[in-house]
Amino acid sequence: MLKRNQNMAKLQSGYLFPEINRRKREFLQKNPNAKLISLGIGDTTEPITRHIAKALYDAAKGLGTERGYMGYGDEQGMAALREKIASVMYGGKVAAEEVFVSDGAKPDIGRLQLLFGNDAVVAVQDPAYPVYIDSTVMYGKTGKYNNAAKQFENIVYMPCTPENNFFPDLKKMPRADVIFFCSPNNPTGAVATREQLQQLVNYARKNKSIIIFDAAYSQYISDKNIPKSIYEIEGAEETAIEINSFSKSIGFTGVRLGWSVVPNELKFDDGSLVRNDWNRISTTLFNGASSIAQCGGLAALDGEGLQEMKKLVLFYMENARIIKAALQDIGYEAYGGDNAPYIWAKAKGNGSWDAFEYLLERANIVTTPGVGFGQCGEGFLRFSAFGHRKNIKEAVKRLKKL
Amino acid sequence: MLKRNQNMAKLQSGYLFPEINRRKREFLQKNPNAKLISLGIGDTTEPITRHIAKALYDAAKGLGTERGYMGYGDEQGMAALREKIASVMYGGKVAAEEVFVSDGAKPDIGRLQLLFGNDAVVAVQDPAYPVYIDSTVMYGKTGKYNNAAKQFENIVYMPCTPENNFFPDLKKMPRADVIFFCSPNNPTGAVATREQLQQLVNYARKNKSIIIFDAAYSQYISDKNIPKSIYEIEGAEETAIEINSFSKSIGFTGVRLGWSVVPNELKFDDGSLVRNDWNRISTTLFNGASSIAQCGGLAALDGEGLQEMKKLVLFYMENARIIKAALQDIGYEAYGGDNAPYIWAKAKGNGSWDAFEYLLERANIVTTPGVGFGQCGEGFLRFSAFGHRKNIKEAVKRLKKL
Repeated sequence: MLKRNQNMAKLQSGYLFPEINRRKREFLQKNPNAKLISLGIGDTTEPITRHIAKALYDAAKGLGTERGYMGYGDEQGMAALREKIASVMYGGKVAAEEVFVSDGAKPDIGRLQLLFGNDAVVAVQDPAYPVYIDSTVMYGKTGKYNNAAKQFENIVYMPCTPENNFFPDLKKMPRADVIFFCSPNNPTGAVATREQLQQLVNYARKNKSIIIFDAAYSQYISDKNIPKSIYEIEGAEETAIEINSFSKSIGFTGVRLGWSVVPNELKFDDGSLVRNDWNRISTTLFNGASSIAQCGGLAALDGEGLQEMKKLVLFYMENARIIKAALQDIGYEAYGGDNAPYIWAKAKGNGSWDAFEYLLERANIVTTPGVGFGQCGEGFLRFSAFGHRKNIKEAVKRLKKL
Repeated sequence: MLKRNQNMAKLQSGYLFPEINRRKREFLQKNPNAKLISLGIGDTTEPITRHIAKALYDAAKGLGTERGYMGYGDEQGMAALREKIASVMYGGKVAAEEVFVSDGAKPDIGRLQLLFGNDAVVAVQDPAYPVYIDSTVMYGKTGKYNNAAKQFENIVYMPCTPENNFFPDLKKMPRADVIFFCSPNNPTGAVATREQLQQLVNYARKNKSIIIFDAAYSQYISDKNIPKSIYEIEGAEETAIEINSFSKSIGFTGVRLGWSVVPNELKFDDGSLVRNDWNRISTTLFNGASSIAQCGGLAALDGEGLQEMKKLVLFYMENARIIKAALQDIGYEAYGGDNAPYIWAKAKGNGSWDAFEYLLERANIVTTPGVGFGQCGEGFLRFSAFGHRKNIKEAVKRLKKL
C-alpha cells in the first residue's frame, strides 16, 4: 500500500491527555467506587453565562427562520465580530482585516504551520503546550526524536523553570525562525512582564524570526502591569502573530471559537504580506467558525458580555487561589495561579508520573504530569483551576489529609 | 524577514469564489439598482427544519445550565453521533470508531493532506472542487504551475467531460498515490455508477492508491442504483477514505458539521493503520466540532430528522429540475441536476468567464464559471440549485427572455 507520512512515525506515543484518560480509566476499573476529582485537563466547567447563552440560543432559533437563517459566512469571520475583537480586545491597535476568527487556537496552530516552509526552525518554551511541537513534527520541520535527550532534533527548546523565573535566557538561545510563546503560560501559569516581552520582540526583530504569541489565557491577567497582548509591545506588529480564544474566558471549550491576528506590517523576506498567505490558507482550508458560536462571541464583547466574562474569570481565579494556598500549606513549591488558571507545583521527591499516580491513588485527584509538557516539566504537576467550587474544596480537603 | 513557504507562491490567483464576489461587487457598483440572483456558490438558502433547529436551540440553551453544559468533547466527535452516523448513514457497514466527526469536508481535506508524505502524487478529476488541488499545492506535493498547460506539475488530472460521460479513462491514467474523487460531482452534477466505482476501487487496489471519496452530496442521489457511499463497493474498505457533510443535506453550511470515515482495513505499506494516524492528526490539530452543531447532527439522524432532510433535499432537487429544463429550453447543453444540486451547462460559443459576464450583465444572474474548476471546465457554467423558489422562478423567467 501507500507510504506513510514518515513525519507521523516520528511522533512520540499519544497526545498527553488521551494517556491520562487511559490511566484514569484503568484506575476506575480497579476502584469502581472511587470519586475522582479532575484538576487535570484545562476544561471549563461552569455554565455559559446568561447574556452570552441567550445570544447562542437566539442564533440557533433564528436559523430555523427565513430571516435568521445564515449559510456560509466569510471564512475569516463575521465582519461585525472581527471589528469588535479589534476594538474591544485591542483598543483599535489592530484593524478588523487583521483579525481572523476561527474554531479555536489548536486548529489555528495546525494551519499556521503552513505559513512557513518545512525548513523553518521552530522554538518552543520547555515545558509547553504539546501541540506546538507535535504540529511541527507532523509537518516535517524537525529531525528525529532523540531518545537520550527525549527531545526532537532541529527544535530549539527554551527552558522555562523556577531558576530563570520561567523566562528563557535569550542570549544563550540558538537562532529560530518561528518562536511559539505562550503567556500567561500553559502549563506553568507564569506571565511575562512588559520588559521580558520587549526583549522577546527585540530578539525576534534582530533575528528575523516570527513570534506566534499564544494569548489564550490573557483574560486571566489581573496584574495591571502585565500586557494582555503582544501588540502592547513596541515593534511587535512587525514580528508577531497572536492567537487567542473564547474557550477559557467564557467557557466556549465545546462551542469552539477563537481568533488570530496577523498584522499588515508583518512581511516575508520577499516583501509579501504574511497576512495575505494567512488569508489564502484560511479561505482555502477552513470554512469559518460556526455561525452560532460567532453570535455568542459578539455578545461576549458587548458591555453585558464583558461583565459576565470578568465574573466567570474571577470565579476560576478564586479556585486557583484556593488550590495554590492548599498546595503551599502542605509543603509543595507552587508557582503560577495569580494571572493564570494553572498552578505549577513541584512534586516532592519523585518524577511527574509517580506524583500523578500518587495523587490519583491516595487522593483520587487527577492532575497533569508536568513532564508531559517537556523535559523541563519533569518533577512538576499542573493543577487546573477549572472546576465546580465544591469539587475544588473537596480536593483541597483531600490534599490536606495526605 | 523570514522566508515565505514557497508552495504558497505557486498558487494561482485567488480562490474561485472571492474572484466571483469581486466581479459581482464591481458590477453592482456600476449598476446599483440591479437585482442579482445568485445561482453561483453552492450555499443553502432555506431555514433549518423544525426538529433539527429545535435540537440546536435546546443544546444552546442547555449550555447555560449546569446540567446541559458541555466543555471539550472527544475531538473525534460525540460517541452517540459517531454511532448514529455508522448505523444510519452506512447501515452498520462502518464501525463507530471509523467515523470522525468534523467541522466540514473542506477543513477535513486540509488535514487529510498530512496523512501522506509530500512526495505522494495526487490525482483529481478535471473539473474539480478547487480545494483538492490548492491544498495539494500548499503542502508542497506538486511542482510549479505550468502557464501554458494551465496545470500544476506532478498532479494527475483526470478529464471528466461529456465525451467520457464524466468518468475518467482509468486505462490511460498515470499512476497516482492519492485520488480525490467526488460523486455526486461538484461541479458537473454527474454521478458514478456502481460499475464505474468498482473500476475505480479495482484501479486503486491494483496501484496501491488511496481514494479520498467526497460524498458531500450523497443525499441528492435519487436513482436507487447509484451507490451513496464508496463502501457499497467491494474492496473499498481496503482502499478508500470517505468524507461527507451535513452542509448540503440539512442546511448546515454555516453551522459547520461533517465527518470522515477511515476504515480499519486501510493500511500503509508498513502495515500500520491509516486510521491511527488520522486519529492522531484529528486529536492534535482539531478540537472537535461545535457541541451545538453535533446535537443538531444527532437530531438529523433520527426518524423525524431524516424525514426533514429528505424533504429539504427534494425542495432543492425541484429547483434543479426547473433550472435544467429552462436551460435546455433555451438551447444550452445541460448535464447533471438529476442526482446532484448542480447543473453543468455548455455556454454557447464563448469561454466560461465570457458566459459568466454575459449572464451577469444581461440577466443579472450570478453563476460559476466552469473553467474555475479546471481546464476541462472551460466553456461551461455551473448553475447551483440552492435558492428560494421565487428566485429560481425569476431566474428562469430572465433566462427565457435572453
